[in-house]
Amino acid sequence: MSSNANWCKWARFLLTIIAFFLLGFLIGWVGRPCVNISPMKPQRIGNKLLNEMQAENIRIYLRNWTRFPHLAGTEKNLQLARQIQKQWKNWGLDSVELVHYDVLLSYPNKSNPNYISIIDENGYLIFNTSFFEKLPPGYENIEDLVPPFNAYSPAGIPVGDLIYVNYARTEDFFQLERELGINCTGKILIARYGKIFRGNKVKNAMNAGAKGLIFFSDPADYCAPGVHPYPEGWNLPGSGVQRGNILNLNGAGDPLTPGFPANEYAFRLDEGIGLPKIPVHPIGYKDAEELLRYMGGVPAPSEWKGQLNVSYNIGPGFKDSYSSRKVKMHVYTRNEVRRIYNVIGKIRGAVEPDRYVIFGGHRDAWGLGSIDPTSGAAVLHEAVLSFTKLMKEGWRPRRTIFFASWDAEEFGLLGSTEWAEDNAKLLQERGVAYINADSSIEGNYTLRVDCSPLLYQLVYTLTKKIPSPDDGYEGKSLYQSWYDKDPWTGYKEAPRIRKLGSGSDFEAYFQRLGIASGRARYTKNRKFDKFNNYPVYHSAYDTFEVVEWFYDPSFKKLLAVAQVRGGLVYEIADSIIIPFDCRDYAEALTNYANVLYEQAKQHQLQLNKYQVSFDSLFSAIHNFTRIAIDFHKRLEKIDITDPLAVRIVNDQLMLLERSFIHSMGLPGRPFYRHIIYAPSAHNKYAGESFPGIYDALFDIANAADERKAWREVKEQIAVASFTVQASAGTLVEV
Amino acid sequence: MSSNANWCKWARFLLTIIAFFLLGFLIGWVGRPCVNISPMKPQRIGNKLLNEMQAENIRIYLRNWTRFPHLAGTEKNLQLARQIQKQWKNWGLDSVELVHYDVLLSYPNKSNPNYISIIDENGYLIFNTSFFEKLPPGYENIEDLVPPFNAYSPAGIPVGDLIYVNYARTEDFFQLERELGINCTGKILIARYGKIFRGNKVKNAMNAGAKGLIFFSDPADYCAPGVHPYPEGWNLPGSGVQRGNILNLNGAGDPLTPGFPANEYAFRLDEGIGLPKIPVHPIGYKDAEELLRYMGGVPAPSEWKGQLNVSYNIGPGFKDSYSSRKVKMHVYTRNEVRRIYNVIGKIRGAVEPDRYVIFGGHRDAWGLGSIDPTSGAAVLHEAVLSFTKLMKEGWRPRRTIFFASWDAEEFGLLGSTEWAEDNAKLLQERGVAYINADSSIEGNYTLRVDCSPLLYQLVYTLTKKIPSPDDGYEGKSLYQSWYDKDPWTGYKEAPRIRKLGSGSDFEAYFQRLGIASGRARYTKNRKFDKFNNYPVYHSAYDTFEVVEWFYDPSFKKLLAVAQVRGGLVYEIADSIIIPFDCRDYAEALTNYANVLYEQAKQHQLQLNKYQVSFDSLFSAIHNFTRIAIDFHKRLEKIDITDPLAVRIVNDQLMLLERSFIHSMGLPGRPFYRHIIYAPSAHNKYAGESFPGIYDALFDIANAADERKAWREVKEQIAVASFTVQASAGTLVEV
Repeated sequence: MSSNANWCKWARFLLTIIAFFLLGFLIGWVGRPCVNISPMKPQRIGNKLLNEMQAENIRIYLRNWTRFPHLAGTEKNLQLARQIQKQWKNWGLDSVELVHYDVLLSYPNKSNPNYISIIDENGYLIFNTSFFEKLPPGYENIEDLVPPFNAYSPAGIPVGDLIYVNYARTEDFFQLERELGINCTGKILIARYGKIFRGNKVKNAMNAGAKGLIFFSDPADYCAPGVHPYPEGWNLPGSGVQRGNILNLNGAGDPLTPGFPANEYAFRLDEGIGLPKIPVHPIGYKDAEELLRYMGGVPAPSEWKGQLNVSYNIGPGFKDSYSSRKVKMHVYTRNEVRRIYNVIGKIRGAVEPDRYVIFGGHRDAWGLGSIDPTSGAAVLHEAVLSFTKLMKEGWRPRRTIFFASWDAEEFGLLGSTEWAEDNAKLLQERGVAYINADSSIEGNYTLRVDCSPLLYQLVYTLTKKIPSPDDGYEGKSLYQSWYDKDPWTGYKEAPRIRKLGSGSDFEAYFQRLGIASGRARYTKNRKFDKFNNYPVYHSAYDTFEVVEWFYDPSFKKLLAVAQVRGGLVYEIADSIIIPFDCRDYAEALTNYANVLYEQAKQHQLQLNKYQVSFDSLFSAIHNFTRIAIDFHKRLEKIDITDPLAVRIVNDQLMLLERSFIHSMGLPGRPFYRHIIYAPSAHNKYAGESFPGIYDALFDIANAADERKAWREVKEQIAVASFTVQASAGTLVEV
Repeated sequence: MSSNANWCKWARFLLTIIAFFLLGFLIGWVGRPCVNISPMKPQRIGNKLLNEMQAENIRIYLRNWTRFPHLAGTEKNLQLARQIQKQWKNWGLDSVELVHYDVLLSYPNKSNPNYISIIDENGYLIFNTSFFEKLPPGYENIEDLVPPFNAYSPAGIPVGDLIYVNYARTEDFFQLERELGINCTGKILIARYGKIFRGNKVKNAMNAGAKGLIFFSDPADYCAPGVHPYPEGWNLPGSGVQRGNILNLNGAGDPLTPGFPANEYAFRLDEGIGLPKIPVHPIGYKDAEELLRYMGGVPAPSEWKGQLNVSYNIGPGFKDSYSSRKVKMHVYTRNEVRRIYNVIGKIRGAVEPDRYVIFGGHRDAWGLGSIDPTSGAAVLHEAVLSFTKLMKEGWRPRRTIFFASWDAEEFGLLGSTEWAEDNAKLLQERGVAYINADSSIEGNYTLRVDCSPLLYQLVYTLTKKIPSPDDGYEGKSLYQSWYDKDPWTGYKEAPRIRKLGSGSDFEAYFQRLGIASGRARYTKNRKFDKFNNYPVYHSAYDTFEVVEWFYDPSFKKLLAVAQVRGGLVYEIADSIIIPFDCRDYAEALTNYANVLYEQAKQHQLQLNKYQVSFDSLFSAIHNFTRIAIDFHKRLEKIDITDPLAVRIVNDQLMLLERSFIHSMGLPGRPFYRHIIYAPSAHNKYAGESFPGIYDALFDIANAADERKAWREVKEQIAVASFTVQASAGTLVEV
């Protein structure tokens, strides 16, 4: 071969090599994904997680944790915390800490029990209410069940005439004072539990000038028709009493350290906020009947009448020959700073460890606490187990997940609020979502979800993947049974989802910090079941058996709730794009504004006179809607292999809920800072939309200064308009 | 050749090809950087930017923009806004918008000028102060120079006896009331300008019960020794008067819309906040001499005496045969809602468009406004030109830069505060830094920088790259001349940097929103030059010529200021890792806490009695220090090709300043929300550290309720401790 041909051959060889080198280089360069990818596909992991969860496990936790009371601030509840900590550690969470705070709690005086008596004109006791509930069968030996009381009641022994005030709602006092002309000043009031949060009732009673308040559970509100009292059925027995705190904290957490965690160097107020000023005590309906039997005065309106065998007179005082008798309250409850313990477990996110999803529920209970809260705590526990099983196969969520077993929820959401205060900066900057895990059941009819509109679509998608536990829905989805049993009316073709109010540990996360939140549980048939909560709520009879015998013998409903809650946590923590839909917020805002506008239009004269217009609000919502639609169009086209592009839109999604927070809070309620939602000022449990406007419009006809009242409406419309407008701004392409 | 050999040859060939393909692939895979990199190296771009800036350009802008007054709320200032908008657009910013707000401004009544008279017992005028300043040479034809007034003074014509109150500081009133036993109730006070913000003086006068207040510029405070009055020199002439607003806004912005932007649907208060309640009017020293000449009462203490040819008696009232004469103020100033215009230009960031650096300064002036603010506005303009020149070469910063020409700064920082309110959510979430561009010179001695400790190291590094404009420092760095002329004493081996207070547009960004901020200007020799501000401040004599003839004939000092400000903006916007150093914050915190502790220790008895301890604060600072050091150790090892790793630490750096914000603000000052810094409650211009503790400790000896006062100290220590502790938490590895 000539050297020329040889050279040619080598050149060809070299060129080929170079070509293939370049080809390789190119494929390597282009092909390298710039994002960490989980070893398993998200869809598969999600299903695996749901399938990991076992009804039987939930049953076992519930059984084990409800043998003794575990009241906040007691050794038993600390022991339970340690047990949970140990289990979570063993299962393999990255870290599990006990985080403590020293908060103001409240307990009856053990050597001086609380009760209420009827006394005659000489002061002799004619009748005393019982000190304790009869212990349920199987629990006769438990020693530390706290007797019925209302936490934070001041001590006091007021004596006076009784007035029956129905549910002690705002409207009840309006009726009492305006229509019936009855003055409550200096009287002892007796109110039935139900409809609204008991703390609101106490506030109303204080405002009315009462010197004491007695709560009772009326059978009309705490017994379902045709159902036996526990243990034969799930109704409240006559000796059963609902415990509960009577604070008006408005989101402050520990009454002595509002805004700050109750740590060792915290500054403690001389006088706590939200504390009631009058003695308050709860009784069962057996005792209530004795107090109400001989009441005098006018008969109560028919809607005020419950199902006791008495005439429901309003008073004041007793009638006829009983009229010299008085009612005397004996309350010796004391407030005390004690240590509480949250259990905080963590899985560090693989890709975005600085983004947090929080899954939390309380552990403390008034008594045995089977439904409240252990049916929730057991579900949380099973979720932790399932997540840790996935971790053993090498999985790790994209974002960090916190699991929290809160303490002292029953004393005013203290554990969760103090932790939120302790970590406010991190949570504001990094919190993607909060999923609550309080009581998993309040009935066995269908699913109930309360959540931010951002979560609607995710809830629907997820429930379509979860099997329905309902009879007659074998092989169908939870979505299907839920939709059939509780559809929206005239809003969306989907199951109804409710607004978040308060009454459980999501409060600080949603209403104060603006972290998208949700809660899910099984509920009763709200159309027909007119009783309140579930009958044995906060009584000695909230036992393991009430769940196993009556509510969910197969534990399938608890399992479905576990799958909903755990599934939400999983999807939010592991999806590349946070699975929020802003368009549902737009629709919700429109709906809320329409409702308020319709209400305001009933005062067209004043709207004109004081130049109050909703135009700016509708215009802002219109912009929000348009921008939300555009945002999701862009989202569809995003390059999910571009880590910064993904982070940028995820930040927008995460921070949208935050954009509704006004740093100074709602008028007079600095810790309720969400402009779109707040617990109702008249009932903490209920969620209110555009609360600033709603509250300004409430009872405007009776305002002392009409101009001032309408200026307030105008101001609140401006605040809401600006907030919505600014929120829309956060979704604009950056 | 045998087919076997042939096969062998082919196999070898194929294997070689595959090997090279794989090699190429590997290099491609590994080599691809997962981050966008600017086409030029950062170091080179930074230098290029500094070199682009021209002293001559700055001179030209200053010349062009100071031919006419451009007062906020006037057509002239809108025209200037449009001109700037057009120029910035032409130069190539991505967008330039005029953003308007309708805010409360204040103007003299054109047909009823303000003045002050001395009247005799029959009410006849003996003497009137002048209506106008004599116009400076070259500007005799300008028509719309607003006459001297104090913006937002209520109209009123109080008559009364005069009391001389020195600078009207807190300590002056203490001395007056406690040592000299003089009661100011119902009197007209006369105070010299200087030392503190005039709004604080007005507040003090109101608190003392005065019914009017007259300001004058004493030659002791507004004339440098041996310098001629303008136009022969740069001292204030006798007819010169300092204008200025007298609000006590405490960061609220537009007085009618605190907390919200003054847009078309904003809710406006009936009564604005921070408005003075007594008439206030400023005069020059020629007129002041007439008012002070015959004053009676005790002689002023020697430190109270200025350099007028009068005896500086305190009063009340005139002496001897003049004692029946009174002083009468004639103030007809009116508040009015008018439209103001910010010019907002933007360069969209190439990599992190959702991270913002803001470079802003005001455009409005009381008169011709050459030093204040045009020496700043011209520097901002030149920076915009330089940035856009780089863009023409294909460069684009990593982060978004906003350039802002603010309106109505002179009326209480209104333009910048309204924009901050309008964009609060975005700024909180995305704001990395704010660099201020007010007056570039208040002297020609050396550099002055006030900034967050996060910026210290960057300021030092940058000034080492900028040539010193000082005589005798040819070939040396700005750092060198600055260090020689104004070193820290006993703190750091570096030039002194001061705390941010208020008095310019960074306020809302730093004190309210917690965005790391800085300002830089050339200053006088603060050791020797005892006069206030610069003498012609806010007078008719702040002309182009005062700069060109006296302060900076070569415009090199303005150029150096441009390079410092522009260089800071560049470095923060374009560095991959945000160039903040948290360790300097740790050092500053330690220093501030030590100073307060030393002060508190003077009350050891009470510290013990009320159990007030600084331990929690020192412990928190200790933690902060340790965590900051660890953070920077990790930062050194970070993989800058990992976009998420970089974003995560950058978020920590960005949000550190934010972590010092307490959402509810300082006690009584809801818009000053930075727990580490605030404008002094006694002088808005000065920065105070740990203001909550400082204010609680201030004057504690005179507190009415000692226990309450010390409980307040204790509370503020707890707030500061928790804030520092929580801030440290944000720097922990996520």
